[in-house]
Amino acid sequence: MGGSILKLLEDKIKKEGIVLPNNVLKVDSFLNHQVDPKLMYEVGKEFKRLFGDLGVTKILTVESSGIAPAVMAGLAMDVPVVFARKHKSLTLTDDMFTADVYSYTKQTSNTISIAKRFINDQDKILIIDDFLANGQAVSGLFDIADAAKIDVVGVGIVIEKTFQKGRKLIEQHNVRLEALARISKLTDDGQVEFEN
Amino acid sequence: MGGSILKLLEDKIKKEGIVLPNNVLKVDSFLNHQVDPKLMYEVGKEFKRLFGDLGVTKILTVESSGIAPAVMAGLAMDVPVVFARKHKSLTLTDDMFTADVYSYTKQTSNTISIAKRFINDQDKILIIDDFLANGQAVSGLFDIADAAKIDVVGVGIVIEKTFQKGRKLIEQHNVRLEALARISKLTDDGQVEFEN
Repeated sequence: MGGSILKLLEDKIKKEGIVLPNNVLKVDSFLNHQVDPKLMYEVGKEFKRLFGDLGVTKILTVESSGIAPAVMAGLAMDVPVVFARKHKSLTLTDDMFTADVYSYTKQTSNTISIAKRFINDQDKILIIDDFLANGQAVSGLFDIADAAKIDVVGVGIVIEKTFQKGRKLIEQHNVRLEALARISKLTDDGQVEFEN
Repeated sequence: MGGSILKLLEDKIKKEGIVLPNNVLKVDSFLNHQVDPKLMYEVGKEFKRLFGDLGVTKILTVESSGIAPAVMAGLAMDVPVVFARKHKSLTLTDDMFTADVYSYTKQTSNTISIAKRFINDQDKILIIDDFLANGQAVSGLFDIADAAKIDVVGVGIVIEKTFQKGRKLIEQHNVRLEALARISKLTDDGQVEFEN
């Protein structure tokens, strides 16, 4: 079961992924701009297989590319999904939890925010995101979870670049971390190598 | 079939929708911030029922709130989804189709863009969006479709405010337009009235 979605994903990445300078992998043909709904449905089912035993009550993600895999995981696990909004400038409001997120790719800082009324201290949170590279977006969601005093029980990632520091950052939180496709190297001639 | 999803949606809107000044309806508990995946799945199936005979090859929407219903429609209809990106400032690039979209709610202009390589002149496009009010986002997608010389065969909307001008704008394009929940009035005391 797990094997087949992993193979589907790796094949898609090999076939359609575009390696850009500075270790950027573009997968906008099925995840970040164009979305393959059936593949996302399989991704959602796989997240259920990986995290279904943890009593998850809510899924958090960040707009926009996290939404498709998170909503499919929510469908499979029958829990609501909340996507954090990104804002260029910080508009502080009392009814929002906010965190700052730095994007190494874009070299800009965003504020992400979640309305307080959609999370409460009884929730068991699963964080889903499309990519794990330097871990900034996921760390921002952990900051929000800490501020809200809620328990994050798992982090599910569609594509991880294992040669960047994201995993190390997240492992500090003592949480189950699962990435479906794990990329160990992007070569200068545009090849993608996976962890075996 | 159509009746049950309509009732589900109307009940959700009545129960959870928040009426704000200037005819703004907030439905961020199931569509715009928190997402109800099962409801979105039913929405997707309903769009297939309404547009499944048109030979749709691709669904277009706009980030972020359009993504969940569009991806569920794409799952039901087995076609890819492309979500247009919003940018505050226009970064012209040769490989993107762009259009300007004015938001009456936020009183700002955004540029939306779609990579040229994800649409071609053989495509039959279904546009999906969460809301139809003044029709600016959908019109922006029509502008992109015109620039790309592709055929838009349908427009599917989750919630329409029928007292605003969006429908009129879209009907000029001679296209099948279907809105699931159709709101005729938002009252001063916070009630939502539906078209019957």
